[in-house]
Amino acid sequence: MKNIKIIQVGMGPLGTKIAEFIKNREGLTTVAAIDKNPDLVGKSLKELNEVLSDDIKISDDLVEAVQHRKPDVAVLTTVSDMERITAQVQEIVSLGIPVVSTCEELSYPWNNACHLAQQIDESAKSNKVAVVGTGVNPGFLMDSLPTFLTSVCQNVKSILVNRYQDAQYRRLPFQKKIGAGLTLEEFNKRKQEGSLRHVGLTESMQLIANRLGWELDNTEDIIDPVIAENEIVTPAMIIPKGNATGVKQVGKAYINGEAKITLVFQASVSETESFDEILIKGDPEIRSKIIGGVNGDIATCAITINTISQVLNARPGLRTMADIPLVSYYENRN
Amino acid sequence: MKNIKIIQVGMGPLGTKIAEFIKNREGLTTVAAIDKNPDLVGKSLKELNEVLSDDIKISDDLVEAVQHRKPDVAVLTTVSDMERITAQVQEIVSLGIPVVSTCEELSYPWNNACHLAQQIDESAKSNKVAVVGTGVNPGFLMDSLPTFLTSVCQNVKSILVNRYQDAQYRRLPFQKKIGAGLTLEEFNKRKQEGSLRHVGLTESMQLIANRLGWELDNTEDIIDPVIAENEIVTPAMIIPKGNATGVKQVGKAYINGEAKITLVFQASVSETESFDEILIKGDPEIRSKIIGGVNGDIATCAITINTISQVLNARPGLRTMADIPLVSYYENRN
Repeated sequence: MKNIKIIQVGMGPLGTKIAEFIKNREGLTTVAAIDKNPDLVGKSLKELNEVLSDDIKISDDLVEAVQHRKPDVAVLTTVSDMERITAQVQEIVSLGIPVVSTCEELSYPWNNACHLAQQIDESAKSNKVAVVGTGVNPGFLMDSLPTFLTSVCQNVKSILVNRYQDAQYRRLPFQKKIGAGLTLEEFNKRKQEGSLRHVGLTESMQLIANRLGWELDNTEDIIDPVIAENEIVTPAMIIPKGNATGVKQVGKAYINGEAKITLVFQASVSETESFDEILIKGDPEIRSKIIGGVNGDIATCAITINTISQVLNARPGLRTMADIPLVSYYENRN
Repeated sequence: MKNIKIIQVGMGPLGTKIAEFIKNREGLTTVAAIDKNPDLVGKSLKELNEVLSDDIKISDDLVEAVQHRKPDVAVLTTVSDMERITAQVQEIVSLGIPVVSTCEELSYPWNNACHLAQQIDESAKSNKVAVVGTGVNPGFLMDSLPTFLTSVCQNVKSILVNRYQDAQYRRLPFQKKIGAGLTLEEFNKRKQEGSLRHVGLTESMQLIANRLGWELDNTEDIIDPVIAENEIVTPAMIIPKGNATGVKQVGKAYINGEAKITLVFQASVSETESFDEILIKGDPEIRSKIIGGVNGDIATCAITINTISQVLNARPGLRTMADIPLVSYYENRN
């Protein structure tokens, strides 16, 4: 495979980390970087992360960057919602560049944002490139991985995915992000603001249902606090009994009143174990567990980079992780 | 999706079981059955398995069956080796019919039978159909599943897959098949005859290496007895200390003297647990375990049937489980 040239669109923390990871991969090169943030435009990548190139300056001019740097693919790491990502994707594909994006809602937008999904699909097809939304979750652990595991089943009655994360030794900002230490009143306020919500459970359920041929009647996505049963002492904080130690978000997808898909995403400082578990009720029954879980920070960057070579192989249009050829780590030696 | 019409080529125990499983799946119909065995030709499927159709008679005339029954896809369950399967695949694709086969060596023939693989690939491309070799092992547990798990890794140093099967409560023929109860002399005789060998470890390693961009220096595939450390009493037999309780087959794939891929397939009546485990050394490290393992009898039939809809979506040519869109269970309702 020839060297793959990448344009990084979105130079926030995730885009910067992806550029750093690409630096360590053979056969992949970041050739240009785009961000609309005036504070970033004109800065070199090295100013954001010292291992990165001093020669590449962040630009806000996509057209000019594409013309001069001739990237093979864009990695788009800007926003999480279809409303805002659609125009960004369309601008890139109109230049004949395929897109791998970490936009959560783009991982399966065919139900919740069908009209926008169609717009992207049509633009991508008419420009003969593929677009795919990926990530570790949504994108892998709670959707394409359980989908692939059903391939050994003659019958599937229901799917349960449990992603539990022991946040006790994670960075303090992560602990705060999941609401650890908040009173229930504070927790509910943050929940109302939407800042506790993990985006993607519904998309993950819809991806699974689509692949399995299940027509869902409805889905739900419910956020609750994990409550300290006793005082919890972590290296970073002391949490009184009754306060939140973290968040539990449960997605359920129903057919005829029966929960066919249940996704549980729980992150708190009071977990005893981190793991990613998939339970498939069916014939045969499958119980798969990733012991220790998957580190989301590394994995999100890695799967985005690993998807690059397959988006180049995929059929034009808006694709999902379940309809492009199998993604994997790869060493792209010449 | 419209109803998919299947021609079953090979009506041995596996082909018959697959036809039975297809009977229980919506949107899939066996429309014809082929076998060259004179003892089977002319029999109805019902004579082989009472849930099957009395109207479909086993024929040895593929061309006639295809003309009259117009199948969308062939399920080929005849032999395990490329030497014999190649002409069979070519005959089917020459009629414009895509092929899903359980032929173990077909799962990744590009190293060990490159010339035959090219012949199949060219025939399939010129007839605009896809051909894929599948199964639970090779095809899934030791190759495409670990390959997919690496998609969350920024770096992979090595892969170890352990498939352990507690054969204590399996049927007596299975226990005999794995050499349980044999003296070491008898075991070695069976090993020399080749009747203990699981076909596919090398193909699985080559599939992984191909997807990860690893150029292997060499592979090995070694069979040893699992030896009773004490007298073993099972519901079916008593095994004296020192005799074989089953078989251990280890495949290793090397680069620069380092084992990059290790596949361990162990089935004995002295295991304490059945499981399928994948260990990926890398960043992050992944340890995945299917607790209780995957029942190979059901799973092989199921994955073959589940691959049908994706071989219809795949690009023409000889494909692998890692380069067709993600296989899954599906309900094909109209």
